[in-house]
Amino acid sequence: MSEATRIIGIDPGLRRCGWGIIESEGTRLRFVGAGTITPPVTGALSERLSALMAGLSEVLDRFSPAEAAVEETFVNQGARSALILGQARGVALVTPAARGIPVGEYAANVVKKAVVGTGHAEKEQVQMMVRTLLPTASFSGADAGDALAIAICHAHHRVAARRLRALA
Amino acid sequence: MSEATRIIGIDPGLRRCGWGIIESEGTRLRFVGAGTITPPVTGALSERLSALMAGLSEVLDRFSPAEAAVEETFVNQGARSALILGQARGVALVTPAARGIPVGEYAANVVKKAVVGTGHAEKEQVQMMVRTLLPTASFSGADAGDALAIAICHAHHRVAARRLRALA
Repeated sequence: MSEATRIIGIDPGLRRCGWGIIESEGTRLRFVGAGTITPPVTGALSERLSALMAGLSEVLDRFSPAEAAVEETFVNQGARSALILGQARGVALVTPAARGIPVGEYAANVVKKAVVGTGHAEKEQVQMMVRTLLPTASFSGADAGDALAIAICHAHHRVAARRLRALA
Repeated sequence: MSEATRIIGIDPGLRRCGWGIIESEGTRLRFVGAGTITPPVTGALSERLSALMAGLSEVLDRFSPAEAAVEETFVNQGARSALILGQARGVALVTPAARGIPVGEYAANVVKKAVVGTGHAEKEQVQMMVRTLLPTASFSGADAGDALAIAICHAHHRVAARRLRALA
């Protein structure tokens, strides 16, 4: 129970893919690392997705997270945008899964609720609360912050799930 | 010029992903193999995508194609369907690309034109022409046939591209 679990949160995107690693021990959280993968914006789509996978693989090699979490995509744009995002999201889901790392998926409002306390928080509030909950966090860019928020959400949910199991 | 090139065509899908392998030598085509990968329909999306990647990896290991081709998706459904298809398509593109296999993309009407002679062919015509162009082909299911059509399209285009280069 007291062992720290390392979690990677991933905010998928073809141009910018945020990643954030935290350690969760009981209800405590610790910042480990965060950054943004930026595949080339030109060239064949397969090459760009391959660069995304290589970038994510490098992060997984470096930090060896035990669990992963990816935001469930809310599709409010057209089908064309959804297809492009879906391709990047498929790579973000499969890269940890192919290594046997379980991947949780959380809707955007669930992530906001876990981090800010309300599902209708503004983007800026999420970024601010990530820095409050992880005071040692050092990162730049909203994508890395969003990825950390997803990791925090997963940490909260796994603690809650464990408590429910303990009560059962 | 006379060396046979092995090509894999992939018709991506989360429930059924068709694959077809041919050899192209000059203007001659030879059937090598074809089939359908059917990832589990339940369970975490990441696991289903991981099963798709494992199935494709197995085919690539077994047949060692030098080039790959995937149909460009025409999105005529809603954004939600596009997202789901996009995720499977991302895996279909990245699995060969991560091994250094170049991946061509062709629009559906380009595939139909290459196989049937017109971009407005019916699905059944495509299947019939695949069996005509590859008389030794043994496969079942429209997904495997569509994948072979994509491979044939790629074979035609690479021959045409070589001729253009020779003229330049």
